[in-house]
Amino acid sequence: MGEPEVDDVGFDPKAELLEQWNGHRNLTLRVARAFPPDKLCTYAPVGPLRTFGAMLDEIARIEQAYMRGLAEDRWSYDPQDPPAPADAAAAVAFVEEAHAYTRSVWDRLPADMLLAPRKDPFFFGDAKRPYDWLVYCVENEIHHRGQGYIYLRELGVEPPPFYVR
Amino acid sequence: MGEPEVDDVGFDPKAELLEQWNGHRNLTLRVARAFPPDKLCTYAPVGPLRTFGAMLDEIARIEQAYMRGLAEDRWSYDPQDPPAPADAAAAVAFVEEAHAYTRSVWDRLPADMLLAPRKDPFFFGDAKRPYDWLVYCVENEIHHRGQGYIYLRELGVEPPPFYVR
Repeated sequence: MGEPEVDDVGFDPKAELLEQWNGHRNLTLRVARAFPPDKLCTYAPVGPLRTFGAMLDEIARIEQAYMRGLAEDRWSYDPQDPPAPADAAAAVAFVEEAHAYTRSVWDRLPADMLLAPRKDPFFFGDAKRPYDWLVYCVENEIHHRGQGYIYLRELGVEPPPFYVR
Repeated sequence: MGEPEVDDVGFDPKAELLEQWNGHRNLTLRVARAFPPDKLCTYAPVGPLRTFGAMLDEIARIEQAYMRGLAEDRWSYDPQDPPAPADAAAAVAFVEEAHAYTRSVWDRLPADMLLAPRKDPFFFGDAKRPYDWLVYCVENEIHHRGQGYIYLRELGVEPPPFYVR
């Protein structure tokens, strides 16, 4: 049986990636806001696990670094500078701001640039194209958000449903 | 600046999805095998959290149900029948078998069928095409595997690196 050409099925990887990311960010914010504010940047069950606030900082910092590079050709990533937000409101705000920036520049990223193989400026790993770097950002967000679900349960809080985006 | 047509960039969503899934399954198996065998199907930090063995069962069961439906038009999903594997070796084997089946039938799934909108036979949610159902399977796997990382740390075990697939 013949398979169609890719263009027959009308798959737009750039548009689909942003839509997925938007949905995941909505859920991540819902999880962050479900934490008792005094626990978001203080609770971790055991060392060396980080707080969910520190994970949010990582999520936003990586997104910001890639997107600023892709949109403005300004490439820098420093996990410590500026320092991570120290309270819940600031941690949530950072995650919101990083994604608001992504949405604001998305339309001007050329789709072919996202899919052209290129060396990752910050990390190692298998991500070969800017598209893959950003997929990795989303996967890293899902990974850590799942960890936030455990923290919430350990704190006696019911997490939001996973399938709602 | 003009954006290229999708076919210009040569993105094959079907091939990319399987490649992602293979990589994630490799890591999931690495996480499962990192558990002390007597803890995989017994340890959960607090109710109503499930064991990582129960999460593996869900991951494999959903994959099996979708893939059997798509490949053989046999549609059934029952979270209790057959019962979940009761020990670590059987839980790991189920996750391996489910994905071996996926790989064995993948080539004969038409790409246009994966991308044609269709009602999800089992669950609700936003997944509109078989492609989206399977993306959801992978995301659910990342989510629960992240939770497995927390369990491992709580059991005093260092988890495998997230970026290695």
